[in-house]
Amino acid sequence: MHLKATDSHNVWDNSIPPVLTVAPGDTVTVETLESSGGQLSRTSTAADAANLDFGRLNPVTGPIRVDGAEPGDALVVDILDAAVDEWGWTACIPGFGLLADDFPDAHLRIVPINGDRAELLPGLAVPVLPMVGTIGTAVPEPGEHSVVPPRRWGGNMDIRQIGPGARLRLPVGVDGALLSLGDVHAAMGDGEVCGTGVETSATIRLRVGLEKGAAPRTPILETSPASRRTGAALVTTGIGPDLMAASKEAARHLVDEVARRTGIDPVDAYLLVSIAGDLVISEIVDVPNWVVSAHLDRSLLAGL
Amino acid sequence: MHLKATDSHNVWDNSIPPVLTVAPGDTVTVETLESSGGQLSRTSTAADAANLDFGRLNPVTGPIRVDGAEPGDALVVDILDAAVDEWGWTACIPGFGLLADDFPDAHLRIVPINGDRAELLPGLAVPVLPMVGTIGTAVPEPGEHSVVPPRRWGGNMDIRQIGPGARLRLPVGVDGALLSLGDVHAAMGDGEVCGTGVETSATIRLRVGLEKGAAPRTPILETSPASRRTGAALVTTGIGPDLMAASKEAARHLVDEVARRTGIDPVDAYLLVSIAGDLVISEIVDVPNWVVSAHLDRSLLAGL
Repeated sequence: MHLKATDSHNVWDNSIPPVLTVAPGDTVTVETLESSGGQLSRTSTAADAANLDFGRLNPVTGPIRVDGAEPGDALVVDILDAAVDEWGWTACIPGFGLLADDFPDAHLRIVPINGDRAELLPGLAVPVLPMVGTIGTAVPEPGEHSVVPPRRWGGNMDIRQIGPGARLRLPVGVDGALLSLGDVHAAMGDGEVCGTGVETSATIRLRVGLEKGAAPRTPILETSPASRRTGAALVTTGIGPDLMAASKEAARHLVDEVARRTGIDPVDAYLLVSIAGDLVISEIVDVPNWVVSAHLDRSLLAGL
Repeated sequence: MHLKATDSHNVWDNSIPPVLTVAPGDTVTVETLESSGGQLSRTSTAADAANLDFGRLNPVTGPIRVDGAEPGDALVVDILDAAVDEWGWTACIPGFGLLADDFPDAHLRIVPINGDRAELLPGLAVPVLPMVGTIGTAVPEPGEHSVVPPRRWGGNMDIRQIGPGARLRLPVGVDGALLSLGDVHAAMGDGEVCGTGVETSATIRLRVGLEKGAAPRTPILETSPASRRTGAALVTTGIGPDLMAASKEAARHLVDEVARRTGIDPVDAYLLVSIAGDLVISEIVDVPNWVVSAHLDRSLLAGL
């Protein structure tokens, strides 16, 4: 099963008809368009970055309907592979980004992607570590919801560990789940501080599964040993407009998940998260909701 | 030169007489006491953790006067080695910690430290990665200042990458700098969410240097290739009571430092930090000031 990047939408709206229906266990190949939605090309300039039509930004491919998925279930998405384009872009877009006040002018860099290197400037290349910036299930509340902020249902979480080898559990809020994804980055740092990674078109291969009645409160991720940063980690999230509240939420979810998986007392799980878990700002630019994630090396739990 | 753990103080106060005077280039061995200040032992219980005298917490060894150091200089501290004790402790202390509302009761774990493993529970050991939780220069404002919150001058930053192989640059605020350190952890996660790492007594070997007129706005760290997480990283900090403001500060300092070191345009440094730098919550419990750090793999800059 294959979805083209033209099978896309730019808002979350659970009345958008599915472009594909799959069964749990199915593998799907999904093409995604870079996050300008085709407004930028290899020959674009800073002026083009200053004049982006925000209504066309961040297209996501989907929705994919999953047979049997109901509110309260966990949708399990295994990212099997991510092939990125030969170029990407990164930009300073006026009014957008953590340091928008410091950098008021538009700036654009077209980034050639050669194998495992993405070249920002001559002599300055960063490792290519593809990740899916936006992936989520449909928002249950009716009507249109901006694709910019992440929510409990996922969406524009910009968690850079959501790449090949990662298993993501998303809560299901509507019948059929209605999964969509896009906004792939060839590289991105935790925080995505200027508001963009190396934005690129991509082809993602994923497998969809279902766990009945097991919806997490917010998305939970398990990364593979090959993942940059904590190796094979258990990653929980806190999502919202206040970094302190999001930090508490991410830490609390990790404590709860460790206690649930291992049977140790929650207060011991709290100590464990303090001495060995890491609080990371995954995304601090997708107004109005930020993502704080809490990471724990899963191998620590192997002896319990 | 050797300092004992009894050469310590529990508040920042620039009128405290130095216990040692060194010259730039000198190496010093510094013993530090675990952060209860001797109130907890291997036989302590949760009741002891509930009854800690807060005035005796977090002793720091020092102050060390550095010949020639003046306000506006950068004090350069190389952490050469860190030997930890055979045991440590970690605790849930009522009213303290990110999830204080969820965990109102005292809880204490004595943690045996065996070589490279610290055992929280049977079958659950975490890697020993010693780090210096509190290290700073004297606060220039007269009088006593709590040792709990970190400040521009460093202090209780709880940045877990401040361990062997790391080079820390601290701003100097008073004549002689007046360096003190303590609060060593055998292990700690980014955030230190319950308020403690594996608190332990230790012996730290460090070298002190001086860069005239080069005070950073907030502490800057360079980690060694052996450092857990980003390898050989350049790490900047944002310190204060608001996580968003601290995040902006850490990101801004990293952008400025990259531009200064490489000569690339600051806006390109901003893009680089977005696609390859990481925002981490180093400390979210040392009221009222939190530490957000921004990490960038220094090897990325080698070709510039």
